[in-house]
Amino acid sequence: MIRVGILGAAGYTGGELIRLLITHPEVKIVFANSESNAGNKVYDVHEGLLGDTELEFTSAMPFDQVDLIFFCFGHGKSEAFLKEHNIPANVKIIDLAQDFRIKGNHDYVYGLPEIHREEIAECQHLANPGCFATCIQLGLLPLAKAGLLTNDIAVNAITGSTGAGQKPGATTHFSWRSNNFSVYKLFTHQHLHEICQTLNELKPAAAPHVIDTLNESFEAEGITVDFIPYRGDFARGIFCTEVVTLDKSLAESDIIQLFKTFYAHAAFTHYSDKAPDLKQVVNTNKALVHVQVFGRKVVIFSMIDNLLKGAVGQAVQNMNIMFGLDEKSGLNLKASAF
Amino acid sequence: MIRVGILGAAGYTGGELIRLLITHPEVKIVFANSESNAGNKVYDVHEGLLGDTELEFTSAMPFDQVDLIFFCFGHGKSEAFLKEHNIPANVKIIDLAQDFRIKGNHDYVYGLPEIHREEIAECQHLANPGCFATCIQLGLLPLAKAGLLTNDIAVNAITGSTGAGQKPGATTHFSWRSNNFSVYKLFTHQHLHEICQTLNELKPAAAPHVIDTLNESFEAEGITVDFIPYRGDFARGIFCTEVVTLDKSLAESDIIQLFKTFYAHAAFTHYSDKAPDLKQVVNTNKALVHVQVFGRKVVIFSMIDNLLKGAVGQAVQNMNIMFGLDEKSGLNLKASAF
Amino acid sequence: MIRVGILGAAGYTGGELIRLLITHPEVKIVFANSESNAGNKVYDVHEGLLGDTELEFTSAMPFDQVDLIFFCFGHGKSEAFLKEHNIPANVKIIDLAQDFRIKGNHDYVYGLPEIHREEIAECQHLANPGCFATCIQLGLLPLAKAGLLTNDIAVNAITGSTGAGQKPGATTHFSWRSNNFSVYKLFTHQHLHEICQTLNELKPAAAPHVIDTLNESFEAEGITVDFIPYRGDFARGIFCTEVVTLDKSLAESDIIQLFKTFYAHAAFTHYSDKAPDLKQVVNTNKALVHVQVFGRKVVIFSMIDNLLKGAVGQAVQNMNIMFGLDEKSGLNLKASAF
Amino acid sequence: MIRVGILGAAGYTGGELIRLLITHPEVKIVFANSESNAGNKVYDVHEGLLGDTELEFTSAMPFDQVDLIFFCFGHGKSEAFLKEHNIPANVKIIDLAQDFRIKGNHDYVYGLPEIHREEIAECQHLANPGCFATCIQLGLLPLAKAGLLTNDIAVNAITGSTGAGQKPGATTHFSWRSNNFSVYKLFTHQHLHEICQTLNELKPAAAPHVIDTLNESFEAEGITVDFIPYRGDFARGIFCTEVVTLDKSLAESDIIQLFKTFYAHAAFTHYSDKAPDLKQVVNTNKALVHVQVFGRKVVIFSMIDNLLKGAVGQAVQNMNIMFGLDEKSGLNLKASAF
Repeated sequence: MIRVGILGAAGYTGGELIRLLITHPEVKIVFANSESNAGNKVYDVHEGLLGDTELEFTSAMPFDQVDLIFFCFGHGKSEAFLKEHNIPANVKIIDLAQDFRIKGNHDYVYGLPEIHREEIAECQHLANPGCFATCIQLGLLPLAKAGLLTNDIAVNAITGSTGAGQKPGATTHFSWRSNNFSVYKLFTHQHLHEICQTLNELKPAAAPHVIDTLNESFEAEGITVDFIPYRGDFARGIFCTEVVTLDKSLAESDIIQLFKTFYAHAAFTHYSDKAPDLKQVVNTNKALVHVQVFGRKVVIFSMIDNLLKGAVGQAVQNMNIMFGLDEKSGLNLKASAF
Repeated sequence: MIRVGILGAAGYTGGELIRLLITHPEVKIVFANSESNAGNKVYDVHEGLLGDTELEFTSAMPFDQVDLIFFCFGHGKSEAFLKEHNIPANVKIIDLAQDFRIKGNHDYVYGLPEIHREEIAECQHLANPGCFATCIQLGLLPLAKAGLLTNDIAVNAITGSTGAGQKPGATTHFSWRSNNFSVYKLFTHQHLHEICQTLNELKPAAAPHVIDTLNESFEAEGITVDFIPYRGDFARGIFCTEVVTLDKSLAESDIIQLFKTFYAHAAFTHYSDKAPDLKQVVNTNKALVHVQVFGRKVVIFSMIDNLLKGAVGQAVQNMNIMFGLDEKSGLNLKASAF
Repeated sequence: MIRVGILGAAGYTGGELIRLLITHPEVKIVFANSESNAGNKVYDVHEGLLGDTELEFTSAMPFDQVDLIFFCFGHGKSEAFLKEHNIPANVKIIDLAQDFRIKGNHDYVYGLPEIHREEIAECQHLANPGCFATCIQLGLLPLAKAGLLTNDIAVNAITGSTGAGQKPGATTHFSWRSNNFSVYKLFTHQHLHEICQTLNELKPAAAPHVIDTLNESFEAEGITVDFIPYRGDFARGIFCTEVVTLDKSLAESDIIQLFKTFYAHAAFTHYSDKAPDLKQVVNTNKALVHVQVFGRKVVIFSMIDNLLKGAVGQAVQNMNIMFGLDEKSGLNLKASAF
Repeated sequence: MIRVGILGAAGYTGGELIRLLITHPEVKIVFANSESNAGNKVYDVHEGLLGDTELEFTSAMPFDQVDLIFFCFGHGKSEAFLKEHNIPANVKIIDLAQDFRIKGNHDYVYGLPEIHREEIAECQHLANPGCFATCIQLGLLPLAKAGLLTNDIAVNAITGSTGAGQKPGATTHFSWRSNNFSVYKLFTHQHLHEICQTLNELKPAAAPHVIDTLNESFEAEGITVDFIPYRGDFARGIFCTEVVTLDKSLAESDIIQLFKTFYAHAAFTHYSDKAPDLKQVVNTNKALVHVQVFGRKVVIFSMIDNLLKGAVGQAVQNMNIMFGLDEKSGLNLKASAF
């Protein structure tokens, strides 16, 4: 059994992680840390867990009793936490925040199993990808690797309200959000960093540089990912559309084959012959991709559950790989479907 | 033209009131008061008004330039406000809060036009009924007046999220509320006060006293209104079911006739021969009632838009009556329907 | 491994059953019958299953190769089917329709595990309870057994749209149903049959007869279950409120203890100390119950997922009992939560 | 008073038109034609009208008693109807279907008031624009006229379920559509015809031809409108994003000024300084547009209510212009806002 500790266990991702781990056959939750909820049952906060577990939140963090710690903090807190606490070298870490997703002066592996399975299997520290970033990358990776990303890439994506977290605010107020549709962080979403990093890592040398417009000018040499994020009036899920303009037309069947081959061995990412709808992936760890071609334009649809494949589901998938388990262990989830 | 001032103009009811008054043919808004938004366009807060009005919020309150003031404060603030400010005696007041709904040491008339039209027409100060209270009373008034309320009354009602106001909180968080259903203030909702007041006022002397269980014991002499309020996953509307147990069976047709007669001259309350659905009244000032009878049980359905007939629509209806206008002036609203 | 056949596999319950069984550790689906879809992948109809199974619909019904058949037909078709087909005596049957729920000239056991676990364990043929019927019974059973149902019982319940099945119609049209609320089959819902059957079976001899008003007069000797069913604007879930008027007041704590004791050994039905909300059970096989007492009125809230504990989840639970498996096998589902 | 007849009065647009016209100060509805509902009250079908009008459907079509006929048929039926019926030459026609939107062997004026007000004022026959077509054109017109549409145009747009009409079907089934998101008619939506027609009509001679890819090859000389339509899980509204790539960068302020100038005199189309959300226009005849610029990319957001500015609201606006009334007469609608 893998002995697991959870930090930030009272938030949305903390709760979803507990929901996954209590039925995982190879995991034992040693502690679920939350200062403000210490001593309370986890089902006092994550109410759907009533009847499923008597686990309690704790203020303790017995690092020496665990094999793995999940960091479910808000962004920016993981790095600060590590400076203040001494986690034994043999304890693995999976960080769900964005603190270590960009390569730098650290040893965190970017945990996208579709391209990094080997590094993940051997890593001690893992940075779990962002939700939009996961979904958009899954739509673009096969073309990136084939060197077909040679012109600006148009991406639009719609996310559910759980992407905005647990704290109530104006844009998650039911009266405002229900039946509504809106845009935010136009062309400037922070996930562009990790998307561009991966695309540049994967592309053949001859293919153009992907400009990270958050750091570089729109006028720089290279191509841009023009990302339009929308807020949808549902709670779970991300639906992305990526439009890639090729230098010259290719047969639709060839491009589809590229995708099928790329994901032939992926545990959770599948090519759909029909245009899928969002609810096919909701409450699962699956990603679906689908492609249609018009002239030089390749239109890709990719979709995931933002809390699962876009967060803790992928984290558990990474855990499975890191500990040599079946990649799908604990993740054969029933889709909510409706 | 009636010159109108609005206090608390930046909240939900303030906004909805402005939406109604800018197209009212007999009204001029002299001021829309909001300290925190003073100097801003009203459409900066009530964004749907962009293109409809250039009205600005103001911190001023020129009471001497208006004929009528709407109090759109939160509950409990109206009374405090009046102690601190001197409103000229000739300026009428419509208070949307609950401060003066219960009779006492004040001259506010309870503004339910279906029973108090004459008092409303002559009053200087009016207390606008609560949303649940309006809807439930409209379902019970004909039976109350006929002396048929002789056993405990079972009421359940579901309200939209706008009933909870503008401030975001746990139960108006989209992620929690969407696709959800829950109960609150079981048997103890504060609107019971005004409901019981009216039922006792209207009933024949011989009919049993209606116990206001918020003040009196459940064991007191009389009958109770057992009110179960639910939170629904929609933004607008209240749908109430009232179940009245008669002492002996009456013909369904007779009871229906009682309702039709009672509301024959009501401007906005209509009897529906078919069981109506909530959206028939959403975004209108209408109330619909419908009755079915089983043995001694009379089941009444009543429904309104909580922000309109349940708040500012009824306030404007009351204004029309107070100023001798056509009761429906400015209130011929297109239903949203979908 | 239990070898299973599914009839009516292309409908809502058929799909949900497949979603459960493909991850059940002790089950092998031998055939999923659907004439009109024969030869197609099940994920062509139940699209969320893409990537999870390559199972195909079949027109075959090899009864001799299975241990158990699930009937997922519409109501009234099970009986007709049995007349036309010869199912070997050793093959068990679980019928999800209402054809055999009322006792009569057949050997089907009414499959509510909370009260019939032993009969279920030994039965060959099982009638799976209705969704509303399950939820309402779970709210009333402890009081029925204690003989406390002595006055008319007021029940209201709201159901999601999946309760209306797969065929599109006026009341499941999105444009109509979204943000809407409505009532149907007032006091005449067909599930009253099975509810009354159970309550009369369970009650002490001295307690009054529960009148099945679908068969008997409202004026008959006994008490009635006054059931008001509503349509809600969500897809999954049933939330019921049962109001029971006692002959004399009892302490709230005593009544709560009655419920806790009654469900102490239930696999999926739990008492909640706080008033639960519907989403706590959505996408799980759980039922939650909660009680509050006011004078002689006992208010019970009960809630389930209509497709799971209200249909195929309970069917799988019954299968587990019938075959001597762990009652929870294959049913440790992750709540969708949001 | 304008005497009006409505054909196809029992459908969604027919109902919405009646909702508008019964409060229009200058209109009298002479007949609301529906064969299948003849003799019934209009509120039997359009139930929200209960209490608002006693108008009945009729099978009669007294063309000689009206000044104007609205065709609210499904697409393709208007032309057929005209062949079979003789409408007097002095009776004006507004056709809400797509039959006469493309120029050809007929005298129908394309009724987009923002660019065709004079032709509309003088026309006898009018083709009312499509919903997506209206919204997308309003986002592109200022750039088209300025000759700035010189590269392929990326459009994505999300529509509510009422766009799919009254007849229930798989994609308007509540169980499927709620909380869902999906794509349809990718790059091939029929509204491209009218969009391309207008853009080519408005553009300076030197600007590139806009290819109508429904008729022409993607490889033809010119630029394309790459239109991705999505289905949203709300009932009303269309939210469009248009991305235009300029040949060289222009100042954001200059482009915004282009929009403000273009719509300075528009009755219902307004420039919003902030990124608007969909509900700002729902249940109104307004259109809002907003622009942001990144390098050579101009991103425009445009939004309307699909049934109002996208259908019957615009039809009434056109009627007002055709009959010399105030363009806003009868169209000062209260936004539903929530």
